Amino acid sequence: MKDLFLLNRDVTYLNFGSFGACPKEIFDDYIKWQYLLESDPVQFITVDGIDHLKKSAISLAKYINCNYQDLVFVSNPTYAVNLLAKNISLSLNDEVLSTNLEYGALDRTWNYYCKKQGAKYVAQPISLPIASKEQFIEEFWKGFSENTKVVFISQITSTTGLILPVKEICEEAKKRGLITIVDGAHVPGHINLDLSKLKADFYTGACHKWMMTPKGCSFLYAKPEFQHMLEPLIISWGYESDNPSSSKFFDYHQFNGTRDFSAFLTVPKAVEFMNKHDWKSISSRCKSSLLNQAPKLFDLLNVEPLAPLTNEFFGQLCSVEINTNFPEKLKQLLFEKHKIEIPIMLQGHKKYIRISYQAFNEIRDTEYLIYSLKDIASTTRLLTI
Amino acid sequence: MKDLFLLNRDVTYLNFGSFGACPKEIFDDYIKWQYLLESDPVQFITVDGIDHLKKSAISLAKYINCNYQDLVFVSNPTYAVNLLAKNISLSLNDEVLSTNLEYGALDRTWNYYCKKQGAKYVAQPISLPIASKEQFIEEFWKGFSENTKVVFISQITSTTGLILPVKEICEEAKKRGLITIVDGAHVPGHINLDLSKLKADFYTGACHKWMMTPKGCSFLYAKPEFQHMLEPLIISWGYESDNPSSSKFFDYHQFNGTRDFSAFLTVPKAVEFMNKHDWKSISSRCKSSLLNQAPKLFDLLNVEPLAPLTNEFFGQLCSVEINTNFPEKLKQLLFEKHKIEIPIMLQGHKKYIRISYQAFNEIRDTEYLIYSLKDIASTTRLLTI
Repeated sequence: MKDLFLLNRDVTYLNFGSFGACPKEIFDDYIKWQYLLESDPVQFITVDGIDHLKKSAISLAKYINCNYQDLVFVSNPTYAVNLLAKNISLSLNDEVLSTNLEYGALDRTWNYYCKKQGAKYVAQPISLPIASKEQFIEEFWKGFSENTKVVFISQITSTTGLILPVKEICEEAKKRGLITIVDGAHVPGHINLDLSKLKADFYTGACHKWMMTPKGCSFLYAKPEFQHMLEPLIISWGYESDNPSSSKFFDYHQFNGTRDFSAFLTVPKAVEFMNKHDWKSISSRCKSSLLNQAPKLFDLLNVEPLAPLTNEFFGQLCSVEINTNFPEKLKQLLFEKHKIEIPIMLQGHKKYIRISYQAFNEIRDTEYLIYSLKDIASTTRLLTI
Repeated sequence: MKDLFLLNRDVTYLNFGSFGACPKEIFDDYIKWQYLLESDPVQFITVDGIDHLKKSAISLAKYINCNYQDLVFVSNPTYAVNLLAKNISLSLNDEVLSTNLEYGALDRTWNYYCKKQGAKYVAQPISLPIASKEQFIEEFWKGFSENTKVVFISQITSTTGLILPVKEICEEAKKRGLITIVDGAHVPGHINLDLSKLKADFYTGACHKWMMTPKGCSFLYAKPEFQHMLEPLIISWGYESDNPSSSKFFDYHQFNGTRDFSAFLTVPKAVEFMNKHDWKSISSRCKSSLLNQAPKLFDLLNVEPLAPLTNEFFGQLCSVEINTNFPEKLKQLLFEKHKIEIPIMLQGHKKYIRISYQAFNEIRDTEYLIYSLKDIASTTRLLTI
């Protein structure tokens, strides 16, 4: 399967989660758009590209089940959440309820915008391991107060790689009259995503991770009735436009200066690629394999899984707490000596090693990781097992 | 010369000004970086790419004569000016002094941020044609008041394609204690740029126009003593960083989520390309040729040049007022029937057709444009000459 990708064959690639990887077929499509752009930049950027963008949005909307007019392409979920955090006006003492398992860049984003408005970002502590969905939900809502106005939550957490019950959270949030924002950076192409059922007010996902487009292709979905709240993060021609299109949401957020938006146009090819190779089956196999292999890591590192070891909580990611005082150095040694690409990340004061399983990963990759960790533990002070 | 580029040979390309065009050699370099990224996205985005970015910044800094640490790469000048306008705090009634010749997206940006703070964006009217540098400067400062805090001005205007005396404006602004921001979108690779002599507090330029990199490569320069004023436009890991680099300016503004930053890395190749092909001589020839050819357009459209017809005001762009009530349709017909790519734009209530001269343009391009305009004037109601 690795032949489908452009990845360096010498590296054991166990970090699909951070930035995905683009298969050759999708990459060729990317280059095709870039050539087309350069064959007449004016026609492409101002005329034809807009049609192509529409086709790409329609393809994506079909894939995640929403109306294409409720989507705009953005570079990444960080951009999308900045756009939202800038725009959702909070009063003094208002609260944004979240978890202590969120992505660090977005914790920073919410803290920044909350502080500006005298509001508070509540990163509700979640006990790990999570005992059950019910326990998670109960714990999450302990962070609720009469000041809570917004819920912000990851559908799959980054450092801890856990699937969270965001559908249930969104339903309860609506009963409580809250705005819901779901960070689905790790979701599209990874676990099933149906926006019509999830019913978040705002949702952002990356296509450049598990949908395997080139980097810089992500989306922001906003329910029609919430789109009017959003001013552009970057003001450009679409703001108070002389030639407005039929969608202010599109005009405000889709264009913000000259750039190569070819990555946005690769979604149809990515969907085609996944269909052609029956990627759903591949993904299922990866998930089963991960559930089978992960216990070897728990045993090695002498820890429990972060949640019940089922596909309710685990997809193609599994994070395992690891006992090291030198996470950066350990990661570096794994790469430099053992040629293993795997992240070791902090959440709070704990460190986690996160394994990704993608089409090209095999059981021997886990075994080699275990061998390498043992080697490091026995020859350095970077790791205690 | 057109063989150096990827442009469609069937089109008479007279609009290099809007989005440049990327020569094959530079485009190949772009693709090379993108392949390298996909060979190990984690290594590239988090480790090696940062070194490559530094090398690219050093190359750019040498080209425009500043310290590389005072530059960050941004997608485009619109991004850079949004970043500045968001951050420069204005009090009630403070004024940002500009001209009525600025780029529409940035007029929108300043109006938006000024309005938020109760400040005022003063688009000082400039009489056209400009009689002399001195007359321009005198007229510009008529917009000054005791409330003026910031000067924002294009070094080369977009719709009207005029070189403005920004060095003199910046010098006078400093005497008056104002912050100076120069929009040099059309400058790098077009006319000589020496930031050490220009002495603007902030300067933004596009590399994807006349420096011919792929789209989405631009820069923001900030004087060291002004960098502390700037919070990120997009909050990410670099804000209140756990692992700060030696430069807060870099940490705050260089990274804002996953994207393909290959375009930023093509600057060394673009500089090499320009040196190898003696692009300075080519640019000089284009400028002379434009001064020689433009009068044919003035005669046809029965107007005067917008400033004295010398290289003090004109580079490789020349805008000519055009008498049409249907600028969009006229532009479209020129493209569809005559295969000419040329913009027709509004500034205030006037319409301008703007010709660009690049290496591959020949005298017969102007002649063909004139022939086509005559054809349209005689067969449609789109144009009166």
